[in-house]
Order: sequence, then structure tokens, then C-alpha cells
Amino acid sequence: MTKIKRINDDLIGALRGLLGDRVSASEAVREQHGHDESYHEGHAPDLVVFPETAEEVSEVVKLCAARDVPVIPFGTGTALEGGVAALHGGVCIDLMRMNEIVRVNTEDMDVTVQPGVTRKQLNQHLRDTGLFFPIDPGADASLGGMTATRASGTNAVRYGTMRENVLSLSVVLADGRIIRTSRRARKSAAGYDLTRLFVGSEGTLGVITEITLRLQGIPEAVTTAVCTFEGVEPAIDTVIATIQSGIPVARVEFLDAVQMQALADYSDLDYPIGPTLIFEFHGTENGIAEQVEMVKAIAGDFGAPEFHWVDKPEERSHLWQARHDSYYACLALRPGAKGQATDVCVPISRLAECIQETRKDIDESGILAPIVGHVGDGNFHVVLLIDMDDKDEIARCKAFNERLVMRALAMEGTCTGEHGVGYGKIDFLTAEHGEAVSVMRALKMALDPKNIMNPGKIIRV
Amino acid sequence: MTKIKRINDDLIGALRGLLGDRVSASEAVREQHGHDESYHEGHAPDLVVFPETAEEVSEVVKLCAARDVPVIPFGTGTALEGGVAALHGGVCIDLMRMNEIVRVNTEDMDVTVQPGVTRKQLNQHLRDTGLFFPIDPGADASLGGMTATRASGTNAVRYGTMRENVLSLSVVLADGRIIRTSRRARKSAAGYDLTRLFVGSEGTLGVITEITLRLQGIPEAVTTAVCTFEGVEPAIDTVIATIQSGIPVARVEFLDAVQMQALADYSDLDYPIGPTLIFEFHGTENGIAEQVEMVKAIAGDFGAPEFHWVDKPEERSHLWQARHDSYYACLALRPGAKGQATDVCVPISRLAECIQETRKDIDESGILAPIVGHVGDGNFHVVLLIDMDDKDEIARCKAFNERLVMRALAMEGTCTGEHGVGYGKIDFLTAEHGEAVSVMRALKMALDPKNIMNPGKIIRV
Repeated sequence: MTKIKRINDDLIGALRGLLGDRVSASEAVREQHGHDESYHEGHAPDLVVFPETAEEVSEVVKLCAARDVPVIPFGTGTALEGGVAALHGGVCIDLMRMNEIVRVNTEDMDVTVQPGVTRKQLNQHLRDTGLFFPIDPGADASLGGMTATRASGTNAVRYGTMRENVLSLSVVLADGRIIRTSRRARKSAAGYDLTRLFVGSEGTLGVITEITLRLQGIPEAVTTAVCTFEGVEPAIDTVIATIQSGIPVARVEFLDAVQMQALADYSDLDYPIGPTLIFEFHGTENGIAEQVEMVKAIAGDFGAPEFHWVDKPEERSHLWQARHDSYYACLALRPGAKGQATDVCVPISRLAECIQETRKDIDESGILAPIVGHVGDGNFHVVLLIDMDDKDEIARCKAFNERLVMRALAMEGTCTGEHGVGYGKIDFLTAEHGEAVSVMRALKMALDPKNIMNPGKIIRV
Repeated sequence: MTKIKRINDDLIGALRGLLGDRVSASEAVREQHGHDESYHEGHAPDLVVFPETAEEVSEVVKLCAARDVPVIPFGTGTALEGGVAALHGGVCIDLMRMNEIVRVNTEDMDVTVQPGVTRKQLNQHLRDTGLFFPIDPGADASLGGMTATRASGTNAVRYGTMRENVLSLSVVLADGRIIRTSRRARKSAAGYDLTRLFVGSEGTLGVITEITLRLQGIPEAVTTAVCTFEGVEPAIDTVIATIQSGIPVARVEFLDAVQMQALADYSDLDYPIGPTLIFEFHGTENGIAEQVEMVKAIAGDFGAPEFHWVDKPEERSHLWQARHDSYYACLALRPGAKGQATDVCVPISRLAECIQETRKDIDESGILAPIVGHVGDGNFHVVLLIDMDDKDEIARCKAFNERLVMRALAMEGTCTGEHGVGYGKIDFLTAEHGEAVSVMRALKMALDPKNIMNPGKIIRV
């Protein structure tokens, strides 16, 4: 990377010729585009550009490629592993002006959007169609960013992640060519699965300029229940038995006592403080009644806590908004601290063990760190609240995070269920994938031989 | 490819040193391994080897790679686009001796198998666990072959295809290295999705030596119904409305009158001869009752045909076996003819139109060709029955197949929903993907720079 040329007047001139005043070199804009919401150190890009079409993105990439200048795509900046940091300088492509919903196909239950459309914007647009888009990371992230990081969220246990819900992409490659990865048909056996290759590639293989997404029918009925347990183990055992019974829960979220306290304080949520599950059921009235009976029977086997039913739409919205704001609620637990939201995912048979050991490790490490998770998938987050002036605490958090990842890997899990690699988890990839990392590197070098696409993320070249 | 060295005594000696008598150069064995069940011309490999471990596969690939000799993986030989033909000679790796079910994780609802395990063998093994593996192409194919071709089948509308149901793979690369593509966790954001890259790669990027698959819980109740319609249009419109209503049908298969006649003759199936849907519902007793009521109401809107309920397990087995044997039933319609089972997939909003135009095209072309399909996905097959001694008929069938593919592409569909590319559809890939084919080629060259992995399939290098 040392050979990469810095930005020069020639490139700035060419970009201004292309985009006019949609090129910024101001320090405030650059600084804002160099970091995400995590504690990972930001690195400001040299320039920020604001294209409005795929063709403009293509031209920007061509201008940068001709000069070996890095290109870093940017959406809402709400990621958690430093994916947007311009580690080697370069041009940040802010895609938020490409925020058009191009085409809704209600008959095929799909939608084509530009990458700057956010998940809430999309669902607002769909409100009269009877359809919705289920993937919901905490932040109101852009769909381009969600695709690039293979995001998921609370609904993934029922509806899958971005991996299952992206039908097709338009991508600008490292040399500026624009490709479409797939047709709009629901399935295909026509060649390599380029769609899935770009989903989760974090801008290291190309810039996503259009996304076709599956949609889901809004269920006839929805029921939500909050359920406080005596301990972590019975809560997680209830989840495991629910999943193993094949009950099609739409959501099942775990929040530990520390997290529930944070939500009570931050979002004025009025539930008992203890290890908690939030269940949501989607279906017909009768179908939901059946699911609820089955889950209540299972929970009964693990100590039979009371189910608090959340049936008023406004109460349900409040609850889920609070859940989505849990990261911010954690930050508010310790004003001035930086948050590091780390996430792992394990096979569900190992989940109780993994969470218990992790809770014990947190307590023994003297760290403040709530646990919250999409436990139906085996996925949970630990939000480390770190005093960045305390070097010893930073070291303890780093060591804890490494132990957490190694614990998950030892249980056949992954170092990140949904946050991505960025540069925060780049050093864990070999521990997880071994020799397969060299295959990832070969793919990267084949599609980006100059290593200009978000360099220093996912894999080092 | 002209530079590839032919098999010589040195390679044969090395393979015999490795595998003993599990190396065959006999004409009968070679001929049997050079073709699948399609009309595409077979090409016998020079040698066939029968490894029993991934390490043996790795050594075979290393020996071939050192001599630039092609390697072609082989399972049950039941594919339909010529994927196993040794177009450039080389060594066929028959994986059917690697047929061990390595590990069933009932708690995590997954299983790890060797590639030679067939789908029926797996489900037989699982029979006491309460779990099953849903993907069911017509033949009792090997799971390695099903992974390599991204197979699907009648259950895909509910449970997805191999794309959604493979959790992780072990793969022998073109240089003999063995990698694992992913961990066993249900989701991950840790790097490029190598699993999905190898699913559907048809042996052109590596040899699959182990597969971890998702399993599903056997539903509490199953109900099957056969429903004969007045015409194709009301049948397909019923399917479209069912899918658009979000009813979670487990199976919905369309068979046209010609296909129903074929099944009546071949499998002694006793239903009216006409455009037919077979529905299957999985769920709880109450859940199924609800689904059935909804589907009956929809079908009523399109002419209200009678539902014939298939509730006896043996009658249901007979029906589905007949459906799975539909290709062979078609062949029996015209003894001596070769079958070409072509398949396309379109967005469901275009399905009725696509099938109607195709039926008209068949009739106007003077071809005998039943239509049958997994219509809940927008996927259907046309089985062309061709007199291979009639050059004019072959030309008419070829022209028809091209029109069918172009019709599907014009409707935003794909040239193959589940049969794969092999060499039979290689010329349609650019029409479907355009510039993206060059990306596929770059990936192929990155992972198989000598082009020894099943050369001449999917993309030409």
C-alpha cells in the first residue's frame, strides 16, 4: 500500500469536472466520513464525493483506478468494525444521494432500490402494499451498507439475513465496469453466485449501486411477549427448545439484566430487570395462538415465568425501538465511554454455555458490558463500555474480545455473526477460516488487482 | 486446452501407487462416467478413480495438476446438461465410495456428509430423528452433485434450494489444498461467502469432499391434494395468487396434460388427464386446515376444480415417486427417443404468460414435450423427446430451446432454474449475465489458473 499515490490536484480537478461541487475536501466532511459508530480509530479520507448515478460512481472509480487511489464506499456510517476508515487515504464515495426506490414489484414481492435508501425509508414507502422488508440492524442503516456487511437483525431467525434476501445487485467493479450479478428470478443455477460473493464483501470487491430485495407479506396478526427469567440459563434453554421444536418464531431476543437496566434508563422501558426474552409471533390469529401455547409450555419447563403481552401497536413500537436503540442505551450507561459492540455466533446447542462463560468472563474482567442477542440464530452481542483514557482497561477489553472470539470459534462458531470484519476483526479471520483465507485473498486480487477497493478491510493483500 | 497433456503411463502408475486397483481404464467404466442422463453427447474420461478420503482426492488432484490433466468429479451421473462429459479427456473422480454420514447434530438441526451420500440414503438415516432433508431433485442424486449444481426440487418453495441449505463445505482446490468454506454457525459476516461460491460451481473451482447441511423438522401433519383444471391459465393463476397471499405451501407442482398422461402410463397414476396442480401442506393440523381453506378459496376464484385429497401415506408416496419419475415417464412416451429436460425460471408474475407461450411454441414446432414444474418458484421444465436419427427434429428442438431461454430472459428470468449450465447451456450465459461473465471467468482463472477443473463447463477460459 505504500506505493499508492496521494490525492493530487489533477484528480481533484477531474472529480470536480465530473461532479461539480459534489466533491468535498473540507476537514469536517472528511473527518465525519472516516469513522463509524465504534471505538475503532477513524481515518479521514482525502476527499469525499457525492455521486447521484451508477455511471458517476463508475467514472469516479475509473479516475481513482487510473491513479491507484483507494475508494471507500460510505452509507450511514453506522457500522461497528471500522469498515469505512480510510486506512490508506483515498476517495470516500458517499452513496446517500442515491436514495431512490426504483421499482416495487408487488406481484413478485420484490423491490429494487439504490444503495442510499435506508431500511426505514423503504418500509415507509411500502406501507400501503401489504409488504415489508424484514432485515433490521439496530441503526436505520442504508440498504447498500446492509448488503455490503451482510447485515441481519431481530427478524433473521424467521426471515433470514441479507444473504437470503438479496436477489440481485448492480456493482461497479475496480476498473469502473458495471455488472448485474443476477436476474430477478427467485432461483437460478446459471453460473457462479456473484450476488452472494458481493453480499458481505464490505466494499473490497466493488461498489454496490443497485439492490433487488425480496419482500415479505405483512402478517395477518402479530403478538409480542416479554418474559423475565430467574437466570440466563433457563432463558437460553427456552430459546434452544423453541428453535428445536421448529416453532416459527419471528423474533426471539435475549437481553441480560445489565441491558434491561440500560433500556429502562435510556428508553423508559418498564419491565422487570433480569434476564429477559422478547418473543414475537407472526401469522394468522389461530397460528399465533398455537405458537404461543407451545412456547409457554416450553418456558414452563424452564421455570414458567410470566409472559407480559405487548399487544398495543404503540407499546410494541416503543419496545422494538428501545431494542434497536440498545447500543445507544449502553453508551448512556457510562457517559464519556466509547462502545465496542462485538458479536459472535455459535451453533445453538452451544449458546447457553457460550453466554454463561462470557458473562463470567466479563464479571471477572471488571468490565461494564451488557449482553444482548438474536439468540434464535445463536448470535449475541457484548457491548464493551470503555474509558479510552484508561490504557489498562483498553487492554483488558481487547483481551476479553479475543477470548470471546476464540471461545466462539472453539464451539464451531464465527468471529462475527452480523457486524462484519472491517479492520477490527481482520486478525481473527485466519483463526476462523485457516487456508480458506488464501482463497479469499485470491478472489480479492482477481477482482481488484491494484487493491484500491476499501483496502485493509476483511483481508490484507 | 490444446496444450493439455494426455494421460501417460507415469500418471497411471502414480494413481495406482496411491489407490491400488481403485483406478480404472476399462472402456465400459470410462464410457459410463462420460455422460449423464441427457441427450448431450458423452465424452469418456481417460481414467476413472475411486478415492475414499478427502486426502486421496487431494493427492489425485495434485498428481493431475502437476501434469496439466483435467479432473472431473462424478456422483450419480443423473445431471441434465452434460456436466460430467470429459470434453478434454482427463481423470474422472468418482466420489460414490465417499458415502459416509459423518455426524448428525440433532440439537442444531444439521448434518455433515461425504459427497457420495444420496438424498434418499440421508433421509433413511434420519428417519428416527424427527428431522429430514427437503431438497429433492427427481433422481436419487448424490449430495455432492446436488451441491455442485445448486439443485432444488419440489420442496424449494418452502425450504429453499441447496443455496439456502448448505452451511459449510470442505473443498479440494485445483492445487490439492483442502479448505473449509465456513463454520457451522447459522449465520456469519466473517469474510467472503465461499460456501455460496462453490455451491453451483459444477466442479469447475474445486472438488467437494464434505458438506454440512441444514435439516428441517418433520411436520406434525402433512396433507396433499391433486387438483385438475380446465386449462393452463387458471392453474398457474391459482399458484400465483397462492404465493402472493403468503400461504406457506410446502410444494406446488404443475403438470400439463401431456405429462399427466405420461404418469398415468408409466406410474399407473389414476387422476384425470388435464392441467394439474399437486399441493402439499406441512404444519400443525390446525395450521394446515387454515392453509387448505385459503387455497381452496383461491382455486375457487379460478374455476373451483375439485381437490382430490391424498391422505394415505402409501398413496402419497406413490404420487411423489411418480412425480420424481416424471423424466423417465416422459422418456417412455416415445420409446427410443432421447430426452432433453430443459428448465427455465421467471419471476412469478410472468409465469402464466411464459408457460402459455411455451406450450403454443411446442405445439407449433411439432415436438412432443410435456411441461412440468416447481411453479411456486416460477420454475418449469420442458422435456423434449427427440428422435436422434432425425436431424431436422434435432434442429427444431435446438431452436425451440433457444427461444424458450430467450423468452425467459426477456421476462427477467434465468436460462436454468436448477439443472445447471454444464456445457449444454454454456452459450446462454452471456445473454443472461452480460459483462458479469467476465467476472466469473476472472474467479475461475484465480482459483484454477491451469483450467484443469472440469474444463469447458459454465464458462470457457
